[in-house]
Amino acid sequence: MKTKLSRNSLRSVLLLLVILFATLAANAQQEPRLYTYSTIDALLAGVYDGDLTVAELRTKGNFGLGTFNRLDGEMIMLDGVCYHAKSDGTVVVAGPEEKTPLAYVTRFRTTATVRPGAALSLLELEKWLDQRLQNKNLFYAIRIDGLFRDVSVRAVPPQSEPYKPLAEVVRTQVVHDYAETRGVLVGIRSPAFTRGVSVPGYHWHYLTGDRKHGGHVLKLTLAEGSARFQEIAALDLQLPRSEGFAKADQERDRAQELKKVEGER
Amino acid sequence: MKTKLSRNSLRSVLLLLVILFATLAANAQQEPRLYTYSTIDALLAGVYDGDLTVAELRTKGNFGLGTFNRLDGEMIMLDGVCYHAKSDGTVVVAGPEEKTPLAYVTRFRTTATVRPGAALSLLELEKWLDQRLQNKNLFYAIRIDGLFRDVSVRAVPPQSEPYKPLAEVVRTQVVHDYAETRGVLVGIRSPAFTRGVSVPGYHWHYLTGDRKHGGHVLKLTLAEGSARFQEIAALDLQLPRSEGFAKADQERDRAQELKKVEGER
Repeated sequence: MKTKLSRNSLRSVLLLLVILFATLAANAQQEPRLYTYSTIDALLAGVYDGDLTVAELRTKGNFGLGTFNRLDGEMIMLDGVCYHAKSDGTVVVAGPEEKTPLAYVTRFRTTATVRPGAALSLLELEKWLDQRLQNKNLFYAIRIDGLFRDVSVRAVPPQSEPYKPLAEVVRTQVVHDYAETRGVLVGIRSPAFTRGVSVPGYHWHYLTGDRKHGGHVLKLTLAEGSARFQEIAALDLQLPRSEGFAKADQERDRAQELKKVEGER
Repeated sequence: MKTKLSRNSLRSVLLLLVILFATLAANAQQEPRLYTYSTIDALLAGVYDGDLTVAELRTKGNFGLGTFNRLDGEMIMLDGVCYHAKSDGTVVVAGPEEKTPLAYVTRFRTTATVRPGAALSLLELEKWLDQRLQNKNLFYAIRIDGLFRDVSVRAVPPQSEPYKPLAEVVRTQVVHDYAETRGVLVGIRSPAFTRGVSVPGYHWHYLTGDRKHGGHVLKLTLAEGSARFQEIAALDLQLPRSEGFAKADQERDRAQELKKVEGER
């Protein structure tokens, strides 16, 4: 009797293990997804507070970018670490309870690596990438480890309520310039038809090699480096249920405002 | 020895069962999501063939709307059944291997029910709903079971390659008018900032009570009925990896084309 029970139990254990591993394997094999919290139009409208914590965001991906509540600086997620670039140009690791009003993250797996043969400005870099990221109607996560002749980044100081629209706030942005710096560009390229939700085209944040400085990229010259990218065909968009998000005017086309905010190429 | 093994095995079985049920419970508790395959801009550009089967789509939701490959008619998903409205106005249940180039589905759970007090035209119905669906920056799935004084629906006949843009194709649409008809309106309301991906505002398909007729709604008069709706804050967007989708011009703003295609209110 005891032996029989034992065998049945073992069989059940094995069966459940198979189910469990099949479930885990199915999750692991899932194609890459871009997890997006809130929308660029909400940020442009002045929705600077979200309910998503850094701890929750880290369950959605290990690579990406965004900002923090009160529009306090810039977010860079790299190798699973969520960095917080402040308006004074310094970078700290974000605490798990910090919250974000806007973030784009993915689980980064390199699908291709390319190396530019010459120094490139930001515009040249984007044109060069455009020839390599062939499907403009999908998303791309792009990681560029390199040596930069110069990089200009900005970060915005934390805001106080009542919040002003982003196009006004960026006038108070603080710009920091770095020369001959080694570091990592964290980029997301979004298709044009996701305007309103994402930043159409390229969106870059920079983090220095020592992880001490960084921010939202305004311009740069890449001296040498390698670009790794991942094609992404699935978007997980989570809209906030906050009153601020509900009330934000997200009807009108904010393309012109976005151009001002992102910095001209 | 045997007893000990048996106890350990039982303990393992119990532990695995707990893990398994926790996983299942977590999935079941997931908040409502709108699964979207491809984009309205791709359809407007003439991408009329997708790779998603009806069988796969039915794993993503039990309620929604869309179309079929070659733009062959209109799709209505209701109570888990995927209906295919042909251009002759007749409706059949879609086969599991039929494919769709564009679909929006969700797992419908009623979060509120409202009843209009008087007969309403389509425009009046939408204004009346606008006062009840309070958050215009979220999605809504809307189901209206009612008696309609009149309903005009259209369906498009299947196209042949090379495909023309949708704004041209709809000139060949076939319109069917139904008077004093009982049936169900299947609707999705999308926020303005998802233009490009979804149809901003309301999008309605109609299915008669006997499930024999239906299509894309152009106009109607609702005599009486009840509207059930579900608020949706999460979008799962799956972009096709087809060459047709990759090559489609989804750069420009197609709002005016969409207006022509959807039919003026």
